[in-house]
Amino acid sequence: MSDILVVGSVAYDSIKTPLGQVERTLGGSANYFSLVASMFSPVRVVGVVGEDYADSDLELLRSRSVDLEGLKKVPGKTFHWQGRYEADMNEAITLKTELNVFENFNPSLPPTYAGSRYVFLANIDPDLQMRVLDQVKGPQLVGADTMNFWIESKRPQLLELLRRIDVLLINEAEARQLTGQWNIVQSVKTLTDWGPKAVVVKRGEYGFVLFSEGRHFILPAFPVAEVKDPTGAGDTFAGGFFGYLSRVDKGLSWPDLKQACIHGCLMASFTVEDFGVGSLRQLQWPEIEGRRAQYEEVIR
Amino acid sequence: MSDILVVGSVAYDSIKTPLGQVERTLGGSANYFSLVASMFSPVRVVGVVGEDYADSDLELLRSRSVDLEGLKKVPGKTFHWQGRYEADMNEAITLKTELNVFENFNPSLPPTYAGSRYVFLANIDPDLQMRVLDQVKGPQLVGADTMNFWIESKRPQLLELLRRIDVLLINEAEARQLTGQWNIVQSVKTLTDWGPKAVVVKRGEYGFVLFSEGRHFILPAFPVAEVKDPTGAGDTFAGGFFGYLSRVDKGLSWPDLKQACIHGCLMASFTVEDFGVGSLRQLQWPEIEGRRAQYEEVIR
Repeated sequence: MSDILVVGSVAYDSIKTPLGQVERTLGGSANYFSLVASMFSPVRVVGVVGEDYADSDLELLRSRSVDLEGLKKVPGKTFHWQGRYEADMNEAITLKTELNVFENFNPSLPPTYAGSRYVFLANIDPDLQMRVLDQVKGPQLVGADTMNFWIESKRPQLLELLRRIDVLLINEAEARQLTGQWNIVQSVKTLTDWGPKAVVVKRGEYGFVLFSEGRHFILPAFPVAEVKDPTGAGDTFAGGFFGYLSRVDKGLSWPDLKQACIHGCLMASFTVEDFGVGSLRQLQWPEIEGRRAQYEEVIR
Repeated sequence: MSDILVVGSVAYDSIKTPLGQVERTLGGSANYFSLVASMFSPVRVVGVVGEDYADSDLELLRSRSVDLEGLKKVPGKTFHWQGRYEADMNEAITLKTELNVFENFNPSLPPTYAGSRYVFLANIDPDLQMRVLDQVKGPQLVGADTMNFWIESKRPQLLELLRRIDVLLINEAEARQLTGQWNIVQSVKTLTDWGPKAVVVKRGEYGFVLFSEGRHFILPAFPVAEVKDPTGAGDTFAGGFFGYLSRVDKGLSWPDLKQACIHGCLMASFTVEDFGVGSLRQLQWPEIEGRRAQYEEVIR
């Protein structure tokens, strides 16, 4: 077991899906990641919120022993994302992005964070991802996520980042966009050629593709009968994945990478069953173990 | 081991994909199905071809001991389909459909076919599928496929057909279209409520979902590094699936259904590696067994 540092967005989301809608619910990659990763290991958050950020939302993370020293509250409003999903829950349609205090986010780590052994750079500007990485001394394992916006606007910086990380977690459409290769076998090969020792491609309801040292591990997602809101599924996958690796704390062995993916997959299956972080507020291990047994039935 | 009767199209296809193109290559659901299913059990074909149909194409099936008594040669030209695929190989774009002799296809079974114990009704007009079924006396297991065109134009007949079959094999988009349910867990439940004891949803590179008696079995496809032409993948899946069930010949037990899906998946993985039936011409069991071992590595 080892400390995990995560940098990412801390946000309020307004989300509409075919099954309902919510206004200004707790969201952001760092929140989704932390709620899940903290079930495995102590988590430290680097981020920024505005004056409107509710104490109860800070309390939720504190109740999971998440270290919020690196989460700065500054004048202004918290990052707000507004989006909707149509029947195809695999793709979000962004209606509004109000960066607010996130616009001038310049992550500066508390001295106590510098020794973090596990670092997850959630989907933010690759320049900021690298700035965070610069402030950590000799991390054991570094993971990162990214998105279409940075692939288009900051490709050179993103390629530089890839040379500095151990694991890339990325959506399938974005893996294709980044490599220019549609075929997923070719695409994951290219991504590892660019730096990371392991690549995990997230495929929504179709699960994931793990690729490392020439080997593939591919599974579908757990079949959820009612997907209410897929927001945060990828970040909770990352939380389960990184949480598992930090708990085992033995590097990137193939069996551990596979188990990490399965934990990511299971965690994401809970996230999509409710709006926002709803399902993650009360999630306990017995539920996860129960679902793991069901998942094994489905894929065996 | 038991005889399998298949009714479907016997065609020439002109296909363009990002990796090349072919003109008037051997195709049609009955051909793809038979080439694979005949590796498991004796196959009998019901279909129609025109005067342009090459003897060598008949010979290919005869060399696999496929019974062609029910394949009628009539005046006119063979069914011709022209289509292309863009980078997303999961969806064919039809450019031209020349039904030719298929337009007046009225399947009439040779008396020797009436006792067939396994019947696969490939994707043709549900009225014709039922007309074939009417001519078989007490089959052991009946499977069928369908497509968007019949879902739109012959929905009542299709629903009648569903009440008469044991297994439905269907593409994911078509399962959603037929049930009006996007969620695949709900969709397969609805399909079995309508009649079939088992439903197999084919998801292209994302594999399949098997549902029967309340249980799911879900796996991705074998990861093929170069998909040249996905035409016929679904029909070869059906060939491997039905071939396996007929060989074991013990009904629809859950372990057999799972193995049948895996064989379908493996067979389809060969099909997509070449244009038309190219990969299936020389396919031998040692190759399939080798790929099965690789597949198990990927999903275990």
